[in-house]
Amino acid sequence: MNQETAVVVFSGGQDSTTCLCWAKQRYDRVEALTFDYGQRHGEEMNCARRIAEKLKVPHRILDLGLLNQLVPSALTRQDILVQAGEKGQLPSTFVDGRNHIFLSFAAIYAKQVGARRIVSGVCQTDFSGYPDCRDVFIKSLNVTLNLAMDFEFVLETPLMWLNKEQTWALADDLGCFDFVRKETLTCYNGVMGDGCGECPACQLRNRGLQAYLQHRP
Amino acid sequence: MNQETAVVVFSGGQDSTTCLCWAKQRYDRVEALTFDYGQRHGEEMNCARRIAEKLKVPHRILDLGLLNQLVPSALTRQDILVQAGEKGQLPSTFVDGRNHIFLSFAAIYAKQVGARRIVSGVCQTDFSGYPDCRDVFIKSLNVTLNLAMDFEFVLETPLMWLNKEQTWALADDLGCFDFVRKETLTCYNGVMGDGCGECPACQLRNRGLQAYLQHRP
Repeated sequence: MNQETAVVVFSGGQDSTTCLCWAKQRYDRVEALTFDYGQRHGEEMNCARRIAEKLKVPHRILDLGLLNQLVPSALTRQDILVQAGEKGQLPSTFVDGRNHIFLSFAAIYAKQVGARRIVSGVCQTDFSGYPDCRDVFIKSLNVTLNLAMDFEFVLETPLMWLNKEQTWALADDLGCFDFVRKETLTCYNGVMGDGCGECPACQLRNRGLQAYLQHRP
Repeated sequence: MNQETAVVVFSGGQDSTTCLCWAKQRYDRVEALTFDYGQRHGEEMNCARRIAEKLKVPHRILDLGLLNQLVPSALTRQDILVQAGEKGQLPSTFVDGRNHIFLSFAAIYAKQVGARRIVSGVCQTDFSGYPDCRDVFIKSLNVTLNLAMDFEFVLETPLMWLNKEQTWALADDLGCFDFVRKETLTCYNGVMGDGCGECPACQLRNRGLQAYLQHRP
């Protein structure tokens, strides 16, 4: 076990919950950090709180309502229809610069608590056009944050090159497959676990789950 | 005149007011952006508002109270004494990652209004240990922001290599010497213009002013 502290950027969804389990196996002390920017479902916050409690991880929620002021999007405004992106367009759930801001505040927080490791579930594989999910962005931000605060952060993205099927396999390796399947919230319509089955997030999650279940050991 | 829009990160102090005048001479359209993170003197906000109005520049104030939650410092907490940094230590006014966060939100805002140019008064010359005032940080952040939002921002820092004396000379060249001297607030004790004369910010500002006045054309 690595004698370091890791801060996990945590939403209560499949990806960040898998990252939380990953960090718990690896680091001596783990903290979960959730950003509240007016998510459509208050349920998302409750879900994150519940998971952190069950995994016995200290959990802090930071208010980033400002982000919502600046970038109205379907994730935070009830009156915008959630839909998959047309070819070459970003999906309507896009919040410009969201991961950049999350990771930047996570770094400020991490330095306060003496943590060098910052873990995020961003992933380039299921890339739906979000430029701040790309590996090259993460690496550039890592350098920038180290220069900004004169501190040796290490940004870690265990899911960067996994598809959803492989993320389910990772959860299984970590011994948290059932936990992630039942306790997380990924669905845009706020339905826990396997979700509504119809929104783009559910379709992506369930396709990966079915693919993994077909050859689960 | 460049037919572009520039967003100036603006506090109402000497440096950012000089940058505002610099941008006004150069760009077709200029907007001022001020961050409210619980500054010790509400007077600072009023001062910024007044300057933007007098210079006829659209002005937006964004609430970044979160930053104050994370990084208590002498600039925002009445109970911490303001003092110059001991040798090798940061002054007690340090807010970790502050410029990184300001410039990141400025970029999100700039993209919303279609502005590529972002102007900041950060300066490496009077470096008092703030790592996110360094030129190398600004350049790294520029790359990171462009990757984060897939947009060609240009971060501009006209004061980067000037000392305070040279910043006064620049204001004079721009025709705003008297305006900057009278209308800005740099003093930690909230005294406008030439200030209290005793706090570190006043001493720095006034030393530069006296040096410039000795050979002012």
